Amino acid sequence: MTNTVFFLFGATGDLARRKLYPAIYSLYRERKLGDRFAVIGLARRPKTSEQFREDVLESIKEFARYNVTKDEQWASFAEHFEYMPLDINNTEAFRELKTVADRLDDKFDVGGNRLFYLALAPELFGSVSHHLQAGGLLETPGWARLVIEKPFGYDLPSAEKLNAEIRQVFEEKDIYRIDHYLGKEMVQNINVVRFANAFFEPLWNNKYIANIQITLSETVGVEERGGYYDHSGALRDMGQNHMLQMLAMMAMEPPSRLSPEDIRDEKVKVFRSLRGFQSAAEARANTVRGQYAAGNLKGKPVVGYREEDSVNPESTTETYFAARVFVDNFRWAGVPFYIRTGKRLPVKTTEVVVEFKNVPNNVYLSKKHKLEPNLLVFRVNPMEGIYFKMNGKQPGSEGAIVPVAMDFCQSCQVGLNTPEAYERLLHDAARGDSTYFTRWDEVALAWKYVDKIAAAWGERTDNLNLYQAGTWGPDQAQQLLSEDGFKWWPVNGQDEGEVAWEFTKR
Amino acid sequence: MTNTVFFLFGATGDLARRKLYPAIYSLYRERKLGDRFAVIGLARRPKTSEQFREDVLESIKEFARYNVTKDEQWASFAEHFEYMPLDINNTEAFRELKTVADRLDDKFDVGGNRLFYLALAPELFGSVSHHLQAGGLLETPGWARLVIEKPFGYDLPSAEKLNAEIRQVFEEKDIYRIDHYLGKEMVQNINVVRFANAFFEPLWNNKYIANIQITLSETVGVEERGGYYDHSGALRDMGQNHMLQMLAMMAMEPPSRLSPEDIRDEKVKVFRSLRGFQSAAEARANTVRGQYAAGNLKGKPVVGYREEDSVNPESTTETYFAARVFVDNFRWAGVPFYIRTGKRLPVKTTEVVVEFKNVPNNVYLSKKHKLEPNLLVFRVNPMEGIYFKMNGKQPGSEGAIVPVAMDFCQSCQVGLNTPEAYERLLHDAARGDSTYFTRWDEVALAWKYVDKIAAAWGERTDNLNLYQAGTWGPDQAQQLLSEDGFKWWPVNGQDEGEVAWEFTKR
Repeated sequence: MTNTVFFLFGATGDLARRKLYPAIYSLYRERKLGDRFAVIGLARRPKTSEQFREDVLESIKEFARYNVTKDEQWASFAEHFEYMPLDINNTEAFRELKTVADRLDDKFDVGGNRLFYLALAPELFGSVSHHLQAGGLLETPGWARLVIEKPFGYDLPSAEKLNAEIRQVFEEKDIYRIDHYLGKEMVQNINVVRFANAFFEPLWNNKYIANIQITLSETVGVEERGGYYDHSGALRDMGQNHMLQMLAMMAMEPPSRLSPEDIRDEKVKVFRSLRGFQSAAEARANTVRGQYAAGNLKGKPVVGYREEDSVNPESTTETYFAARVFVDNFRWAGVPFYIRTGKRLPVKTTEVVVEFKNVPNNVYLSKKHKLEPNLLVFRVNPMEGIYFKMNGKQPGSEGAIVPVAMDFCQSCQVGLNTPEAYERLLHDAARGDSTYFTRWDEVALAWKYVDKIAAAWGERTDNLNLYQAGTWGPDQAQQLLSEDGFKWWPVNGQDEGEVAWEFTKR
Repeated sequence: MTNTVFFLFGATGDLARRKLYPAIYSLYRERKLGDRFAVIGLARRPKTSEQFREDVLESIKEFARYNVTKDEQWASFAEHFEYMPLDINNTEAFRELKTVADRLDDKFDVGGNRLFYLALAPELFGSVSHHLQAGGLLETPGWARLVIEKPFGYDLPSAEKLNAEIRQVFEEKDIYRIDHYLGKEMVQNINVVRFANAFFEPLWNNKYIANIQITLSETVGVEERGGYYDHSGALRDMGQNHMLQMLAMMAMEPPSRLSPEDIRDEKVKVFRSLRGFQSAAEARANTVRGQYAAGNLKGKPVVGYREEDSVNPESTTETYFAARVFVDNFRWAGVPFYIRTGKRLPVKTTEVVVEFKNVPNNVYLSKKHKLEPNLLVFRVNPMEGIYFKMNGKQPGSEGAIVPVAMDFCQSCQVGLNTPEAYERLLHDAARGDSTYFTRWDEVALAWKYVDKIAAAWGERTDNLNLYQAGTWGPDQAQQLLSEDGFKWWPVNGQDEGEVAWEFTKR
């Protein structure tokens, strides 16, 4: 089923090295890949296949979940890898590539399936697609699929243009747009928790849920991505894709079937139900943008965003944004979804918090006690698990009531080696399961929503709030919730001071 | 508030030694008792107060939650204890007791509050009450309360007779009937979990709950209680009190206020709603009785019930019973409550399992997967905690779904030293809080329900099922649930083979 020739464009890049080679190796080790596959590394740089295999080995040693030694098993894995230097503007080179591909296809009895993974700048997607066709690579007895990475465009018009170019060559059903957050174990678990448990679905609506909070915090600054990032910013880099995708997973109606199109149809319905902003003032009233200034992170001084390499010293790009989002349908009417993301925040974490409406005021126990609302927390990253906060009798007390936690900590399980998002997604693409890839209409609707915010921000320059690196962003993000009588819950379900884990290798 | 002279009738007995002295000591150590109290030990046996204090010290050393050393602190605690040998049929002796009590009341500035704790055979309750009055002990400027232990009668007529005798002397409001299961941390937590969390109450009804299972299993046999037990049996010894009380805590409607009478009113409503049996055949169809035969427990051979000391070798007394109980009201119509208790079962545990209705069959995920229903488990004893079983993605799998557990293990908390049930109940009685004591109408209704079962059993002798010691009782108890398409969930939320904890000192 997964017999495939993988064409890796951008074979010398960071994504290939950190994620893709380790993912292919893990799939191989777990026998999900079989032996009828080949990987062709493609980049501008000249390199022999032998050198390429050494590079792949190094990357696996550094980043893979499985240990590797250069033994016979390695050799039989590595022989599936070849490298070919490629000028992506040269159609003739693509014809050569076809020859290589046909040879490998024969050698490993692949049967003609081709997966083109473009780990490239989006500007090149159209041209590479065109050359794939012109070079004859799509004339194959098996399937031909295109896998592309976010960011998919800069706004709706640029995304439409990009999409149109790709669609001249590939059909929508053969385009796999990766949002790697959809590959994460706990994001995929949202569906299971919601639809495989009779317990949650009856409560999953505006009658019982007060609000939903999605946090995607990073401790890093822009690092070496300053040039790209200064052009893009947090809203486009994180909001349009990861955050709205997680929101859709939480908000979607149960699909009629488990098929990819049914699930994506439901997500599209969520995007269609997002309450658009009627004016720039309304958009600004429901969003917060910030930029980090110099500060301290884990005891070390760090520079402000404008002092970073390749960043305009007068940049007004946001490195933080928060928004209050409404899904205007029967299920969610009146329930705010709060989303926030930012760089140089105190901890790296991705969490989705469902805050339930509290027991009625002035009734029974809430008369005598200050009761905290129930929380259900999906810990997506770096911890993986589900956390439920409820009220219980304080152990040993005379009837005092305190919040107690029930915890399913998946990543705490000894010996558990959870697949990386890219493993799942590569495997799914090779199997033809597009459930956790974003369909064009999702992308378009997300851009449409985000463009209005960007436009509202752009009209003014006085709405960029500086925040000290190492803090939880501008005060305005707290105000956004306190206006509604809510607050951001501390991440990891703990007081911030007690967050015990840190970003290690991921 | 808790200034009290405690009169302990049965001061040399097992309950006093194992539970009451340790409880008084813990209350003292936690400063819940203060210094204005006295304890008068009363029993037939001659003994000096000095000897009595030594005995109390020994019992505290052996059974208390706090360590004790014979130092100054001990001395100032022990001087509150005096002993008086008492012939409980001699009114004159009670007059002497009044003199002792008045002296201690003066000495410790108690102010006239008197708590009469009858750790005696129920047959003596009436006569002791009468003598307390005749001896002038109830003529006191403070309050006078009677604390009595289960079992309260053998059936409704005997309980009524007992109650009438006591009520000649004490008012209902001054009678504290102990059911020590109501003093247990997790039984008290049932109310908090239900009414302090918005999460559970919407699901707490026949729309979402499939059944409720209450297990109270013991590993011990009858031990030295053979004589009493052979007359009583599991139904009267455990069912009429502990099990129906726990059932009432689970099933009761939210009370209008937190006051003891409001809560007990709601429990009475549950007892009134118990579906009575219209015929002996119906009672038999909904119950199972068993008696242990010789077997193995934790690798050791143990004798059968009929071979135990003081047990009739042809006894037909049940050491196990299970029942299907219905609470016929709007909330619970159609939801079976299964209760079971027995001696010589494989583990000692008390647990309440709420099994939720499963997601609809043939819909979505349940089409592809065999989904287990959600369970919410109150672990009452010896582990204390709350356990929730739900379905999640099998970590690292391709969408396999497995049950995962969220766990709040109270007794696992390091350094936590939970009060014993008797501490809470003694403290409550001294404070005048009768919430967790059983009111007469509860007792009467529970007997009325249980008497019908006993009568139905009594009509035939062919319904006693032998079970091997060390097993989970007769097969008929499994059939009782499988008739409804259910099964007993393994206790402790784990497979029986994996139950890791054991009864130690409790």
